[in-house]
This record gives sequence, structure tokens and C-alpha cells, in this order.
Amino acid sequence: MSNSMFDHKLSGPSLAFQPLYLQVADYIKQLIVERRWVPGEALPSEFRLAEEFNVSQGTVRKALNLLTDDKIVTRRQGVGTFVSEHTAQDALFRFFPLQADGKGADLPKAELLSVELCPAPQDVIDALQLNKKDKVTKLVRRRILDNEFCMSETIYLPQSFFPDIHQSSDIPHTLYHYYQTKFNQTVHKTQDSIKAVLADETDAKLLAIKAGEPLLLVSRITESIEGKRIEYRLSRCRSDHYHYQIELD
Amino acid sequence: MSNSMFDHKLSGPSLAFQPLYLQVADYIKQLIVERRWVPGEALPSEFRLAEEFNVSQGTVRKALNLLTDDKIVTRRQGVGTFVSEHTAQDALFRFFPLQADGKGADLPKAELLSVELCPAPQDVIDALQLNKKDKVTKLVRRRILDNEFCMSETIYLPQSFFPDIHQSSDIPHTLYHYYQTKFNQTVHKTQDSIKAVLADETDAKLLAIKAGEPLLLVSRITESIEGKRIEYRLSRCRSDHYHYQIELD
Repeated sequence: MSNSMFDHKLSGPSLAFQPLYLQVADYIKQLIVERRWVPGEALPSEFRLAEEFNVSQGTVRKALNLLTDDKIVTRRQGVGTFVSEHTAQDALFRFFPLQADGKGADLPKAELLSVELCPAPQDVIDALQLNKKDKVTKLVRRRILDNEFCMSETIYLPQSFFPDIHQSSDIPHTLYHYYQTKFNQTVHKTQDSIKAVLADETDAKLLAIKAGEPLLLVSRITESIEGKRIEYRLSRCRSDHYHYQIELD
Repeated sequence: MSNSMFDHKLSGPSLAFQPLYLQVADYIKQLIVERRWVPGEALPSEFRLAEEFNVSQGTVRKALNLLTDDKIVTRRQGVGTFVSEHTAQDALFRFFPLQADGKGADLPKAELLSVELCPAPQDVIDALQLNKKDKVTKLVRRRILDNEFCMSETIYLPQSFFPDIHQSSDIPHTLYHYYQTKFNQTVHKTQDSIKAVLADETDAKLLAIKAGEPLLLVSRITESIEGKRIEYRLSRCRSDHYHYQIELD
């Protein structure tokens, strides 16, 4: 039993009313999640969708505008509306915020160091809301910008979403694209939590720096288009001539 | 003369065609910048705007949707469309990403330590694209979460945008709201660049920590709704039980 006077903030009533275009947007999204249309495929015309859903063309357009803003579909002027694909490059620019000082965004490479199936550690269980007995595939990589190791990554992938990924012999640099094309898991957004830490001996070895140097530690929870937490990632980033770049608006 | 084979990437043609609703959105934004309508004021109805601009109501709606997404206007269901105001709380939640570990977003307080008008240092000249002889007001503050000093801030404000702010005796905690209401400078977005650094003796004194502890250094360039760089801010944040929280999508 809690006696906090702020408890009511957590239990407000949810909105009962949902405008039609939001319902249509949710429905189209659901069809995409169910792979009625696959990444890269064209959706039917607004006219056809309006007919099929028995709503006005304006409502369909509003729904597609919303899905475009959410990057779930992509519109090509005069051609039509397509289910968004993570091209390797798109995903990198959208979700790789580390940049060399004085330079713009660049495409990193990756060196895969190890892959193993293991029980989920407690912090991974908490972050991904797993059960005690769930297994995860653990990947360890180094990322490379301009021929220099700029960060090390430890990536945890639940077995339920990525069965047998630990047995793959062809895991590429561009993981988010791989998740989508091979496991039907489309990355929709990430929550990054950033701290400053001191490099330990392992960091020193992996990143060719000295122990005790300050690093950025980025803890990332990655959510799929279906709203599932599909990846937990710990990145330890050199900060001597790199920075994490982000725009708020 | 450059012999890089990638130079062509920087010189692509700009888009010649701009859809009507974008032109209308730009025009409405321009009127807001010129204070035809001020923060908090209602815009005319879609019908009136359509009539005035000689476009369809659908085009006005699309323009207002865009301005709503950009947070330049705010729609209140059944009431109308209003020029967005930075309420103190809004701006804090939008632009204050430091959180105590294990807690959600919270409203920080501030302690103002010094205010002075001074020549702009070179890094400020570079960040804000100032001229050598421009003066800036320099504010130094400490931010407080849960009765603890969590970060120190050094804030630079160009004299051209903030005349006489160094003589104010009433600078409040909520600066972005103050910029808008007192200097007609509405914060539209920020570019944050994040590094890890070691606390020096000054940090140790200001934040009640030990020198050598890792800190987050956030360098922020703040842009107004008019697209001007109006503020440069260096924040040195404790990381022992705080983190910078951000969502990418």
C-alpha cells in the first residue's frame, strides 16, 4: 500500500475517443506488422484504401501523413506510398549519433569479436522485460570510423525475436537492416541513456587508449514497429575526439 | 582546388518545386516571426485564412498540421489554433534531458552565480557565427535536482538578440520562457554535442564532487524560430547518478 500523494498521476483515465484517421493509421500499421505489405512494397492507392476501409480519401491521406511522419511508410511524389525499408545507410544515419569532432555524420564499420547464446544477465532482463529463464544472443563488436576504433558494443538479442542468430555465419555490419530483412524485426525507435565513465583495462585494450580516460557509456533500448523491446545495447565510446550529436525540437 | 571524388555530394541541386501547403506554412510562420500574432494568441479560422491566402481550406489545414508538428502552433480541439507559448514547464521538459538514475523527468531549479557583459570568446564566436567585436552576456548557473547540484552551466547570449539582459535584476530559472516573453526570441530547437570529460577543481567545488570524476560535457547551440543561433551553452553534468536521456526515431 502506498501513501504517496502523487499516485493519482499514474492512474489517469485513458482517452476513450480516437479520431477516425488514427484508427485507420493503426489499422494500416497493423497490416504492415502482419506483413500484408512488406518493406519496399507499394500500398494500394488512397482511393482504393478509402474504398476498402469505407472512409473518405481525406481520412486515408491524414492516416498516411501520420505514418509518413512516423517513418513507417515513405511517399514518393507522383509514384505512391511504400512500406519503409531500412536501407543500411538510412538506419546508420538515423541511429548512429557518434561523430568525429569537426566532421559530420559518417558511416562506421564494425568488427565482430564474439557471438554466443547465454542466459540473460539481470540488467538485460530489466531493460528488455524478459523472464528469468529467457536466453539472449550476446554480440560483442568494435566500431570503426576513419580507420580508428571509436567504440565497443555489447548487444543482447532475445531468443524469441532472433532465433538461431547465434548460429549465423554472415552477420553484417548493418545490424538494423539485417534484423528487418532476416528476422522481420523493424527498428522503430531507440531510448538512449548517456553517462560518463572511466575506461577500464578492457576498454583500454579494445579501443587502444589508456585506462582512466573518460568515455561515453550509451545504454540503448531498441523498440520495434510492433512496440516490442527487441535489443539492449551498451556502447562505450571514445570521447577524446568523438562526440554524441543530437537535435532536440 | 579539391581532388576529392566525393565533392559532388555537397553540390546537389536544391529542390525547385515547393508544394502550396509548404508555401502557406512558411508564410504563416513568417507572420508569427513578425509578431502579426503573438505567443498565446489565436489564429483566424481555417476558413478565414483560406480566404485571405486564396487557397483551399484543405491546404490551410495541411499547413497548420505541419506547423503543429513543428510546435510553432498548438491546436485545441473545438477551440482553435494558437501561436505556441513556451510555458516554463513545457520548455524544461522539451529541452532538459538530464535525469536522475531510476527516476523520470523532473523540473530542475537554478542558482544564478554571475552575469557579465564581455567580449565573445573564440569558441562562442565559432558556435554562434558572431563577428570578432560582438559582445555577449555570460551567465553562470548551477542546476539543482532533488536538492543536489547536478550540473553547472555557462551560457552565452549575443548582445544583438538580448540587449541589456546583463542589467536585468530578475533573471528567472526558466530562461527559454524568459527569452520568449522578454526578448521575443522563441527557442525552436537545440543541437547538443555530448562528450565525457574529467572534473577539474572548479567542477569539484561547484558540484560538490571530487576532481577526476567523469562528467558529461554538453555543448548546446540553440536556434530560434527565425533560424538564428541565439544561445551557446556549456553544461557540465554529474554522471554518478544522473544520465542524459534521449529518444531517436
